[in-house]
Amino acid sequence: MTEQHTAINFAHKYSLIDAQWSPRVIAEMNDYQFKLALLEGEFIWHAHADTDEAFIVLQGQLRIELRDGVVEVNAGEMYVVPKGVEHRPCAAQEVKLLLIEPRGVFNTGDAGGERTAVNDRWV
Amino acid sequence: MTEQHTAINFAHKYSLIDAQWSPRVIAEMNDYQFKLALLEGEFIWHAHADTDEAFIVLQGQLRIELRDGVVEVNAGEMYVVPKGVEHRPCAAQEVKLLLIEPRGVFNTGDAGGERTAVNDRWV
Repeated sequence: MTEQHTAINFAHKYSLIDAQWSPRVIAEMNDYQFKLALLEGEFIWHAHADTDEAFIVLQGQLRIELRDGVVEVNAGEMYVVPKGVEHRPCAAQEVKLLLIEPRGVFNTGDAGGERTAVNDRWV
Repeated sequence: MTEQHTAINFAHKYSLIDAQWSPRVIAEMNDYQFKLALLEGEFIWHAHADTDEAFIVLQGQLRIELRDGVVEVNAGEMYVVPKGVEHRPCAAQEVKLLLIEPRGVFNTGDAGGERTAVNDRWV
């Protein structure tokens, strides 16, 4: 039997996301998740004690503040924040981001608080 | 001290790759690797017994043949081939691909043979 399998289209998935700073799962690979997020403004300082976190920018310019500096991540670029490193994502204008990290990681890491998004929301 | 950290630019990395079907590592996240590859033509049928494999197409159109069908993955799309599923990547014209998989995975999986690329080549 020949079946037409379907790829995951980032633009289509983004069209279904209605909130900023609210990562949505689009795929899983083993125990890792691919999440799309819309970012605008400044997030909070946080770290993930147990895992690295990969950021791929699909549109816009993401500024990741680090305690010892900063990294600008433009569309077509990626950056991996190492495990335990405090960081603060900021976006002067809306950024379309693809995050890759293990299942169960919260967006606010060890910081918690009111900006913690619900986990495992698929789109 | 403020240090300017540097993002990984896909276009720049691709400009340094001189061979098709030869994945090059650009980043690591825990025990996973991000690899860029240039594909053109047909690869061999193979599977990865122990891991899923994520394909993100950055340029071109990738056709992944599966034993029960096919999936077309265009630029701006991704697809995860599940663990153990036989697949054959094909590209009528050159495709720029971002692969994500655990460190140590060979491009030919369990099939081996002459098209097996050297692993852990960074660019």
